[in-house]
Formats: sequence, structure tokens, C-alpha cells
Amino acid sequence: MSKRHVSLKTLAQALNVSMSTVSRALRNHPDIGPEVTQRVQQLAQELQYTPNPLAIGLLKDRTNTIGVIVPDLVTYFFSSIISGIESLANEHGYYIVIRCSYESYEKEKECLENLLKLRVDGIIMCLAQETQDYAHFNHLLEAEIPLVFFDRVCRPEEVATVVVDNQEAARRITQHFFESGYRRIAHIAGPAQLNITRERIAGYQQGLQECGLPFEEDLLVHCDLSIASATAATQQLLALSPPPDAIFGVNDTAAFAAMKEIKRQHLRIPEDVGLVGFTDEFHATVVEPTLTSVMHPTYEMGREAALLFLAQMDAKTPIQPRQQVLTTQLVVRESSSRAV
Amino acid sequence: MSKRHVSLKTLAQALNVSMSTVSRALRNHPDIGPEVTQRVQQLAQELQYTPNPLAIGLLKDRTNTIGVIVPDLVTYFFSSIISGIESLANEHGYYIVIRCSYESYEKEKECLENLLKLRVDGIIMCLAQETQDYAHFNHLLEAEIPLVFFDRVCRPEEVATVVVDNQEAARRITQHFFESGYRRIAHIAGPAQLNITRERIAGYQQGLQECGLPFEEDLLVHCDLSIASATAATQQLLALSPPPDAIFGVNDTAAFAAMKEIKRQHLRIPEDVGLVGFTDEFHATVVEPTLTSVMHPTYEMGREAALLFLAQMDAKTPIQPRQQVLTTQLVVRESSSRAV
Repeated sequence: MSKRHVSLKTLAQALNVSMSTVSRALRNHPDIGPEVTQRVQQLAQELQYTPNPLAIGLLKDRTNTIGVIVPDLVTYFFSSIISGIESLANEHGYYIVIRCSYESYEKEKECLENLLKLRVDGIIMCLAQETQDYAHFNHLLEAEIPLVFFDRVCRPEEVATVVVDNQEAARRITQHFFESGYRRIAHIAGPAQLNITRERIAGYQQGLQECGLPFEEDLLVHCDLSIASATAATQQLLALSPPPDAIFGVNDTAAFAAMKEIKRQHLRIPEDVGLVGFTDEFHATVVEPTLTSVMHPTYEMGREAALLFLAQMDAKTPIQPRQQVLTTQLVVRESSSRAV
Repeated sequence: MSKRHVSLKTLAQALNVSMSTVSRALRNHPDIGPEVTQRVQQLAQELQYTPNPLAIGLLKDRTNTIGVIVPDLVTYFFSSIISGIESLANEHGYYIVIRCSYESYEKEKECLENLLKLRVDGIIMCLAQETQDYAHFNHLLEAEIPLVFFDRVCRPEEVATVVVDNQEAARRITQHFFESGYRRIAHIAGPAQLNITRERIAGYQQGLQECGLPFEEDLLVHCDLSIASATAATQQLLALSPPPDAIFGVNDTAAFAAMKEIKRQHLRIPEDVGLVGFTDEFHATVVEPTLTSVMHPTYEMGREAALLFLAQMDAKTPIQPRQQVLTTQLVVRESSSRAV
């Protein structure tokens, strides 16, 4: 254990006065004479005494910390969002305490409980893939603890959320495929219970309809967002007879996995199979062919989530939850650029 | 502000007893009669009272939080290491509070000060690129505050560190290039002040010497680890007359940037230029050609750093700083596989 902290008690003992005297002397309280005040302040400076923010936090019932729960700490999508949250939080004197749910519902509940026990001021989070029951948020809502969801959300009438225009982005992808001459457009979707999955499927189907293409159930397969699962989904699609001539992956990870599998089967991209991802990581520009993707404002999503959080912190009374929708952009590259 | 926390005071007021009575009743203290104890415990349960860990932390001078400072939150390298730290910390009941130095020395000092003010139990960190003066760690060392460096380190006689076998890995890369028939082997190195840069350059030069190749200053260029800077370094190398026939990038980001630039100049990989990276991200297997790289145990590095931290926390007296060296492995793929 360290010997680092000079406490009020240290000062009081060294000067043989009470802790309350030290405390008041540090604040230049008129009840304390100038001579004592000077002695206290001088020693505090010499010993590099700083007030303990936890003690202050206890008094104020505020710790200036934000609990952040993500389903995965490693992928670019989440690390970029965390970077946005951290940067805005830092500008406003807040710290972020990070926990990972590893896509597990039980782990998510545990992270939530632990962070609240740590007395974070509130929570910014993205739902785990497994989470289909939302009762574990009741306590926070009842206690009016600031809460913000980003990307994967629930209870939007009650909780502030930041999402992107998933449906519109997916509609645009389908239309882009159609305009590039693709006619059997498949979609590797995420887990069925997630809002991002439902919204992207809705946009995919809307796009098909607008282009006069039928929706074929075989062409819609789900994955659990892992590389292995996206690879299996690609194999399932390519084994169809006839196979799809275009694949829209729910994110870049799925699209990269699909790209690897398509190449492994000696099919050409974009000639035999067109491919589009979602997130637009830097790597989309390095793979060959370069990957068409939806530019997802991840960093801004993090900053927006932090702003929604601070609005709740600063409000004197509970505020109406806002649903922030950020706009995406389709960036067309080689993987879907087939001569019509 | 939230109304969430039921405090000792709330219970005391509701039952019209003193806070000290409540506190003792909750701990089944023999001084408190069974009737009062039961009333207190019942109300505590009804109101979902939990002891405040900050208050407990104040008493114990321990908060069970670890400050983690990284130069960059977004790249796979750091997010994977953070994931390792978080997982081990979590297993031992610790929380991690994350700050980003954005590769800035001033920002690093600020992060350090702020985290200590927050009363984290200690720090696990990777030095910012700019950091060349290490006096800001004096205070922690004097106060015996647990401190662990990973990857980019300093003062190894005083501070526990986790690094990889940088020199040996770089030596092996050079030798691998030589065995694949490459003779003008270049190295895009990191910033000169970092230990990882110095160690990888030493290994590169050792490899050249063992293979009987001269060290040519022109073939060693530095970058600041950004994509733009690695691209510029590649351009500088390819403009040499004659240009190098192999490039070893200080990390995968640099290698991906080099790959993009080499292709842009219509040179073939591995025929015209061989390429090797360092980190072995998933993307190394998706780019074309697939990238030869050094498998860096990032997740394990995070867990090891957390273990070294906990060893310091648990020690009754200061312990000799350990230098943990993790082993890497060269994974040969297409980008350096030229027929000899």
C-alpha cells in the first residue's frame, strides 16, 4: 500500500489542532485566526495536500465519473466511440470508467450493478447482443440516474439514445446495388433482437421493394457479429442455387469475413459478387478490392452520447429523453463498382 | 441530479436513531439490542441500502480503481491491451478509469495528475510519443503508488514493465527477408525516443549484420506512427535509386499504409517489394496480399500489466520492479513470400 495521501488528519496531527480547524483554515473561515490559518495553509502547501475528491464527492453526492459499458472493447467501432465519449467527458471534467459486457446479458447486469456501487454519476452504454429483457434498467430510471444508450438501444420513450439512420442507409445500399446491375441482393444481418438489425433489414426490404425486386427469405441470413459466424453466413449464401450476386454485410467485420470467404471460393469481387459493409473503418481502403461501406460517425456518436449525458446531469428536473439520429453516408469503392 | 442513494443518514432519520447506531446495527454489533438491529436491517433491505464504496474507500485509503493511460484509444493494438487489463482487473474486483494522452507529453502529465486527484489506487500506462522527460513520475515513485508501464516504457530499474522481445522479433524479420531473396531491406521505424523504436532498429541492424548485408542509412526512415507519416516514409523509400526491395513496418498500421502506397505506384507485392508488419491484426489476413506480421500478444500484455499492478497493490512493502518480456512469433503470409 502506498503512503501517498496527505489527509486533513495528517495536517491536524502535525499542528496539534482539530480536523475541523484545519478544514476551516484551508477555506479561510473567519472563525480561525490569521496565525493558525497561515500555519495550516503553509504546511498544506509543503506537504502537497490536495482535497480528496472522493470526500468532496460524498458531500456533493457526485463523483464526476461516467460508467461506460460496451459489448466489446476491441473492435474499431467501439474503441472509436469510446474515444469520442472520453474526449467530451474530459473537456467537462468527467472521467470514464469502462466495463465490457462481452455481449452477455448476465455480464451486462453485473457491470451495471458494479458501476452503480462504485457511485458513478450515471451510465452511457450499448446493449449486449444477448439482452432481450430490459428490467435491469428500472432501478436507474426510478432513481433518475442519468442513462444514455448508443447504437443498440431500448426503451427510447424513457431513455436518451444516439443512433444512426440505419433504415435509410440500408435502403441506399440496396438501391446502389440495383443501379450497379445486381439483382440477387443478399443481406448478412445481425442478431434478430437488436434494433440495428431490425432497422437495417427494414431498409434492405424497402430498397428491394422500391427497385421492384422480390424479397427472398433465403437471401437474408443472420450472424452473431463474429468473424466465424459471418463466414458461415457467407458460405450458406454462396451455396444457394443460384447464389446471390451481391452481399450487404451488417458491419465491416462481417464484410471483411465475407470478402475472405468469397475469395477463398475463387469468385471475383465485384464481377461475380458485389460487396458492401457498414462502419467504414480505415481498413476498407486497404483491402483489395477496396470496400464500399457506410461511413458511420462513430467518434461523433461518442461525443453526442456524452452531451446527452451531461444534459441530464445538469438538469434540475428530469428531462424528456431525446433520440439523436446521426446521418451516414455511402462511400462507393471497388467492391460494388461493376460496369452495368 | 439523481435521488438514488439511500444513505446511513436516511436510515437514521427514518428510524430516529443515530447514524452510528445504524452503522453498528448493520454490522450486528453486540452493543445494539436485537430489536433495533432488526428494525435497521429490515428498513435497509426495504430501501435497498448498500454501503457506499467511496466511504469505505476513504476509510481504507483504497478505491479499487486503476488509472489507465494510453496514447491512442482507437487502434486495435491499444483497444486489445485495454481489453486484457479490464478482464483481469474485473476478475480481481478492480475498475479501470481510462484516459487518453493523444501522444502528447503535456496531456500525459495532465492525465496523470487528474487520475491521482481522483484517488485511483495506481496507474498502468504506455508512454506518449512526445514524452522524453520522465520527471513527472517522481511523485508516484516517491509515494510508492503502484505503477506499471507497457510497450513503451522508461526507468525500468524503478518501474515494473511489460514489453515484447522487440529486438529478437526485428532480427527474425530481417533474416526472413534475406532467406526470401531480398537484399535491400528497409525499415520504417517509429519515433527515435521510444524504446520500441530503438529495440526494433537494433534487431534490424543485428539481422543485417548476421546476413552479411551492410546497414545503409537511407533505408532507415522514421514515422510518427500515423498513416500519413507512414505513407510519406514509404514514398521517401520508393524514391531512392535503387529503391528497397523489402520494407519492414514498425507496426501493422505503418505496413497497411505502405501497402496502399506501393500498390498506388503500381509495384507488385511480394515480387517487387516484400512487406512485413508488426502486431498481426485480424486485417492482416484480409488485405491482399495477406500481410506477413509479428504476432504480438496484446491481450496477454494487458493481463500481465494488470498482474504486475496487483502484485504491487498486495505487497506490504515495495517490491523490486519486474521486467516482463513476452515472446512474439513471426507469421509468414503472401506479402513476403517470394520464390527465391
